[in-house]
Amino acid sequence: MPEFRQDLISGQWVIIATDRAKRPETFACKGAKEIDRAALPAYKKNCPLCPGNEVMTPPEVLVLTGAAGAHRAPGSAGWRVRVVRNKFPALEPEEKAEGKPSAFPRPDEAYRAVPGYGIHEVIVETPEHNRHPAVWAPEQMALVTEAYYQRLAALEEFPRLRYIQLFRNHGPEAGASIEHPHSQLLALPFVPERAGRELERAHRYYLEHERCPYCLLLEQEGRLNKRIVAENELFTAFMPYASRFPFETWLMPRLHQASFLEQGRAERAAFAALLGEILSRLARALDDPPYNYYLHSAPVRSSELPHFHWHLELVPKLTTAAGFEMGSDVFINTTLPEEAAAFIRDKGRLNNESWKKDLLCNGSAQSSTSGQFK
Amino acid sequence: MPEFRQDLISGQWVIIATDRAKRPETFACKGAKEIDRAALPAYKKNCPLCPGNEVMTPPEVLVLTGAAGAHRAPGSAGWRVRVVRNKFPALEPEEKAEGKPSAFPRPDEAYRAVPGYGIHEVIVETPEHNRHPAVWAPEQMALVTEAYYQRLAALEEFPRLRYIQLFRNHGPEAGASIEHPHSQLLALPFVPERAGRELERAHRYYLEHERCPYCLLLEQEGRLNKRIVAENELFTAFMPYASRFPFETWLMPRLHQASFLEQGRAERAAFAALLGEILSRLARALDDPPYNYYLHSAPVRSSELPHFHWHLELVPKLTTAAGFEMGSDVFINTTLPEEAAAFIRDKGRLNNESWKKDLLCNGSAQSSTSGQFK
Repeated sequence: MPEFRQDLISGQWVIIATDRAKRPETFACKGAKEIDRAALPAYKKNCPLCPGNEVMTPPEVLVLTGAAGAHRAPGSAGWRVRVVRNKFPALEPEEKAEGKPSAFPRPDEAYRAVPGYGIHEVIVETPEHNRHPAVWAPEQMALVTEAYYQRLAALEEFPRLRYIQLFRNHGPEAGASIEHPHSQLLALPFVPERAGRELERAHRYYLEHERCPYCLLLEQEGRLNKRIVAENELFTAFMPYASRFPFETWLMPRLHQASFLEQGRAERAAFAALLGEILSRLARALDDPPYNYYLHSAPVRSSELPHFHWHLELVPKLTTAAGFEMGSDVFINTTLPEEAAAFIRDKGRLNNESWKKDLLCNGSAQSSTSGQFK
Repeated sequence: MPEFRQDLISGQWVIIATDRAKRPETFACKGAKEIDRAALPAYKKNCPLCPGNEVMTPPEVLVLTGAAGAHRAPGSAGWRVRVVRNKFPALEPEEKAEGKPSAFPRPDEAYRAVPGYGIHEVIVETPEHNRHPAVWAPEQMALVTEAYYQRLAALEEFPRLRYIQLFRNHGPEAGASIEHPHSQLLALPFVPERAGRELERAHRYYLEHERCPYCLLLEQEGRLNKRIVAENELFTAFMPYASRFPFETWLMPRLHQASFLEQGRAERAAFAALLGEILSRLARALDDPPYNYYLHSAPVRSSELPHFHWHLELVPKLTTAAGFEMGSDVFINTTLPEEAAAFIRDKGRLNNESWKKDLLCNGSAQSSTSGQFK
């Protein structure tokens, strides 16, 4: 019998379709045409993100060199992480904009538009064209998350920005159009409707129960210990009870923090370590699947909210949303999160020798869920 | 300069990224590996939806034969549209379920699940394996929409059902796992969070302005006449001002109706005609792209709502949602809806001889939007 499960915070129901259940191993991208990452060059002449080609990108807004967090003069060689404005931004940083997004239009006003002010940055995660996070040394991931932290902090100073969406696309099936490892952020002049809703619902829960609903989730996941994939002294990675997608994984600080920027240095190090571990485990267990991850942090200049708890959501791109999901926003998940978590704990263990290192899965093993008549 | 546009009803903002703009013609699936539909057989021995193979599906719940709407005894040959339960349903029709989805859990209750009660049906749209809606005779589309109507009406009688999601997936990239033309419906024991939100927001608008916001949209689209793709005496098809996806198209009755079931016979005929026309135009203009469509109608047993207005949303699958969209639910649309509508009006015109009939585009020309660093 299938089961409906409701997410505590979003209120969204998912269908855990156990009768159509797929064993976790069926998602390993084995059938995929394999691109040997080791055969990719470490440097590509025409890659705008490779070292030596810095002139192909807009000027840097941040450069990190060897020692974690140490700044270096922009434009200098020897960088290990670089942040630049996107050369073809989805939003324009110039403050041409007059209007500001606001609430309901007037009765005669069906259309509401404002100029597309915002900031679109690219975090170049490594000088090496052919090495992605699952095979980085831990220090590299620490530099990347340090860059996240510093850019989010810097953008807090822009008075017209209200929300920053940080994200990473891995593999062409997940929307990454260039190979060189990178993350992106888009800073917006408003809080997106979805984020606003999540904040509102969490706030309502807090008012009713006088506690953060995410803290409750963490406590229960720890007590049950069925969906935890990995953890360290400060962070937990688990597959949510009402997972919308197979292998959907959330990383959350165990102590209450509304904003990514509330982290101290020790927490940032622990976050980087756990994120690196999760990416390695996924790559090992599922043969380097395509994925997206994105940060949910409090809006700009609103840290220390008692009801919100920042986290990172990671979703391997293994299924295709079809008409049912698009119409209803109810997702059909054919994999039990409890089984998926056990699979990643086991097959993804870091000494799993069966993992074919440096192979990039191109994801042609993807399957749709609701689309299936079967 | 890009532009933010807000949808009147959902409140969602989209980014119309004119600087990254794609000309509508770049979406034509020309580069795709072409599967010659004409080379597909009209009958396939192992296709569960082909005539003669009826035994491969569960028993029929509806059969339509030649004359529009005329019933015929279940199991009989000579059907033109057949509706069956899904053999591998995402939900179970047996009323084993005890619980009923409800509101916020108690403080100690992070997890909420109910048995997966629901009904999953497949509308077999034609006996012909190799002919899809863009090339049907008008009578076939009228039979299909008649089947939609009759099944939605019949399911109103199930007291535990609250919402029905009707949808169609066209092409494997849009999640269709079998070739034979079919639609599906999933009837749920609750109103999905997204639909509830749309109803609430429309209700709030109605309370403030004493009018249906969808009626306002129709009036303005008619007045401006920039985004209308096609219309007839009773229905309008337009690309919404805040389109999330390239070529997103909404079909809406011009008279206020909350539920699909409020239609009379003339309206059903007009709806079928316009839907058929839109599908033909899309196929002609974009070389038979993959797409999804889904119905947004009032919840079961709640017709005649003054604030809600049923409509069908059609989304060609031409882009990949990536980390930004997944995280923020803000979509980046690289095509101006005004230009896309003009393109479909022109290139999609029904006497456009350049359309390569009977070719099925497999969509490998798909491109991602936010994923692109460019």
